[in-house]
Amino acid sequence: MVKTTLAPFAEYAAELRPLIDSALGARSEPAEGCPDGLREAIRYSLLGPGKRLRPMLVLLSARACGGSVAPAMPAACAVEMVHAYSLVHDDLPAMDDDDLRRGRPTCHKKFGESIAILAGDALLTMAFEVLAKEIEPPQIAAECCAALAGVAGPCGMVGGQADDVAGTDTKADIDTLESIHRRKTGAMIGVSLRLGALIADADGEQLEALDRYGRNIGLAFQITDDLLDVRGNEQTAGKRVGKDAQRGRLTFPGLLGIEQSTERAKDMIRQACDALVPLGAGADGLESLAMYVLERDR
Amino acid sequence: MVKTTLAPFAEYAAELRPLIDSALGARSEPAEGCPDGLREAIRYSLLGPGKRLRPMLVLLSARACGGSVAPAMPAACAVEMVHAYSLVHDDLPAMDDDDLRRGRPTCHKKFGESIAILAGDALLTMAFEVLAKEIEPPQIAAECCAALAGVAGPCGMVGGQADDVAGTDTKADIDTLESIHRRKTGAMIGVSLRLGALIADADGEQLEALDRYGRNIGLAFQITDDLLDVRGNEQTAGKRVGKDAQRGRLTFPGLLGIEQSTERAKDMIRQACDALVPLGAGADGLESLAMYVLERDR
Repeated sequence: MVKTTLAPFAEYAAELRPLIDSALGARSEPAEGCPDGLREAIRYSLLGPGKRLRPMLVLLSARACGGSVAPAMPAACAVEMVHAYSLVHDDLPAMDDDDLRRGRPTCHKKFGESIAILAGDALLTMAFEVLAKEIEPPQIAAECCAALAGVAGPCGMVGGQADDVAGTDTKADIDTLESIHRRKTGAMIGVSLRLGALIADADGEQLEALDRYGRNIGLAFQITDDLLDVRGNEQTAGKRVGKDAQRGRLTFPGLLGIEQSTERAKDMIRQACDALVPLGAGADGLESLAMYVLERDR
Repeated sequence: MVKTTLAPFAEYAAELRPLIDSALGARSEPAEGCPDGLREAIRYSLLGPGKRLRPMLVLLSARACGGSVAPAMPAACAVEMVHAYSLVHDDLPAMDDDDLRRGRPTCHKKFGESIAILAGDALLTMAFEVLAKEIEPPQIAAECCAALAGVAGPCGMVGGQADDVAGTDTKADIDTLESIHRRKTGAMIGVSLRLGALIADADGEQLEALDRYGRNIGLAFQITDDLLDVRGNEQTAGKRVGKDAQRGRLTFPGLLGIEQSTERAKDMIRQACDALVPLGAGADGLESLAMYVLERDR
């Protein structure tokens, strides 16, 4: 059900990304009490060349529910802060031990391990500060904090990462793999959509549609990530490729093969787009983003 | 102005500590999606033999402002979660590299470095979840989240720790030392008092009194901590002693000498008790806690 009139995701990105980057920049400027080295590491990790996928989901979700972009911007910043923190900590020597991220040295490679741990801690804390201080009215701010903490914590992203680093010891089946990714990637994608919707005062039907959309693009995103690791080249991906296989880590192509994984991703994107139908034309940006997830090369 | 009728702090601790421990235990029980090893590390770090000083400050502050203990309990749990997270991350090999904490192996010694990093991340996230979900009304929940994030983040505790690990490179004067401790210890003590007061619907005069009390016991607490490191023995302190000096780290006795440091702590406790006068008899618990800070041996 792809419309022939659908604008490519690049157009939405060209509109929203500068707004997001300027909002992130403003919220990580020098402030009293924050040492220069720590602030540099925070900005390096937050303002680098990422896709800003999660903040765009927040903003496009607000729009899909009839809201506008500006009131949702603090939530867009918050989800990107949590994402940036998770990458910094995941890259640490004790975790995935990565030297390269988005084509640049990882945070601990550039600033040292102690500053990287602290920069991650700071980014996680800043996410809740931005939500609690800036989202209006305060009832919605509290609801956003609760939703974000719920998916970021031990039953969500942190729990998924714990199972992921345990990796080779866990059961190597598709259910385990989906459970890890539901918590690590899917939950953050889902909450990005939810925060945008809450701020735009969405109704139950809209929330449900976005939830279905999010579950499908979340897993599709992870499958295409795994496929890029198998097929991609280091320069385009901006990080080490083939590393999943080297580590014996569970992946979709590893369990299902490349062809079946690709089919599965396509099917999920189809279901994601179907879920958007009740939201009407306001959801065009989200539909375009779903197509991008399938076609991206990094 | 110590009253002869003041109950010893041990009596307040005997009343409140079991309530706090049971509240912390309930909020860290097994939950879907949280791997067993991670949950164990969280509970090990959260439920160990600590003093529960910060949660007691929350509860006694609520009481000093005419409120009761039960509605403030989620905030008491939140500040202890943030405290526990900060200890787990501070103890990591890349930071202070400590093997012993409260008489037991540190979290990374017991569970490994990756689980320790993740347990700290989880505890920080849980703190905001507890506040956002449980504090009523939601406006106060949002205010509590904002206040806690403000002092825990890059301009507060994380910034203080960054300066502290940079340690030997920073200026070795009393202003630098006080600035580190204001952010590392003082700010968390101050926000503990503030959360209790906000939940008890305190007025401006009460908030100001608690703020003055907090600034004084915060620094006094740090001075007595440094003094214990010089004088204490390992068994009582439950951690390595004399380590500050070995590391060339800034300390109050190092800069001012033992005698002047002791005098300074006494003077601050006197000022803390003076600050409580406007709060009346409801603040007896806080006064008793101030006396304990001065006299504690661990």
